[in-house]
Amino acid sequence: MDAPPPRLKLKAQLMCGEAIAMGPGKADLLAAIAATGSIAAAGRSLGLSYRRTRDMVETLNACWPGPLVHAARGGAHGGGAGLTPLGEAVLADYRALEAALETAAAGPAAALLARLNAPG
Amino acid sequence: MDAPPPRLKLKAQLMCGEAIAMGPGKADLLAAIAATGSIAAAGRSLGLSYRRTRDMVETLNACWPGPLVHAARGGAHGGGAGLTPLGEAVLADYRALEAALETAAAGPAAALLARLNAPG
Repeated sequence: MDAPPPRLKLKAQLMCGEAIAMGPGKADLLAAIAATGSIAAAGRSLGLSYRRTRDMVETLNACWPGPLVHAARGGAHGGGAGLTPLGEAVLADYRALEAALETAAAGPAAALLARLNAPG
Repeated sequence: MDAPPPRLKLKAQLMCGEAIAMGPGKADLLAAIAATGSIAAAGRSLGLSYRRTRDMVETLNACWPGPLVHAARGGAHGGGAGLTPLGEAVLADYRALEAALETAAAGPAAALLARLNAPG
């Protein structure tokens, strides 16, 4: 297998005290909850343990002025989960931040990436 | 001690295969080597073990088309170290990339940061 080509990795984390209120992993989790309608299925799709998934949702719901994720209890399939309007807004704003960073990085990173050795 | 206010943390990493060819930690190490004239003193000033410091310098010197750090051997003080012209150029380009990211993030991050709860 060939090594991946030189590339830029960007990470934006919104910190609330020592907690990460939003970052790449939590954004992916929110997107997966919206896509699957289930906290457990979303975590599994990202390779996270159930414990870790619940902890991330707990942090998300604690750091913002309201919950980002709602979960209904009961029903034949254990209830459904989804994003609150605030969750949708925060995820959209975070994706916009990521897009702005990618755009801003393109120029300054190009010269650095061009200079990097191809991985051996 | 009060918790720090909500804030944005940005990280840009230039990847060379699985190695980090440049990132916040390596940039700080390069700057410290330039400031102290010594690889060992630079690592100490950043709280890094000597082993870790040497590994980082080795990665830096392997990922780019030439060494970023030069080290002279011998002499009463164990020789001196500094940045090569390539090292100075890569560090400057990386700091310019970081500055472009901070500028681009300011607008999109402001609304998110304003919404975050104050840490308890």
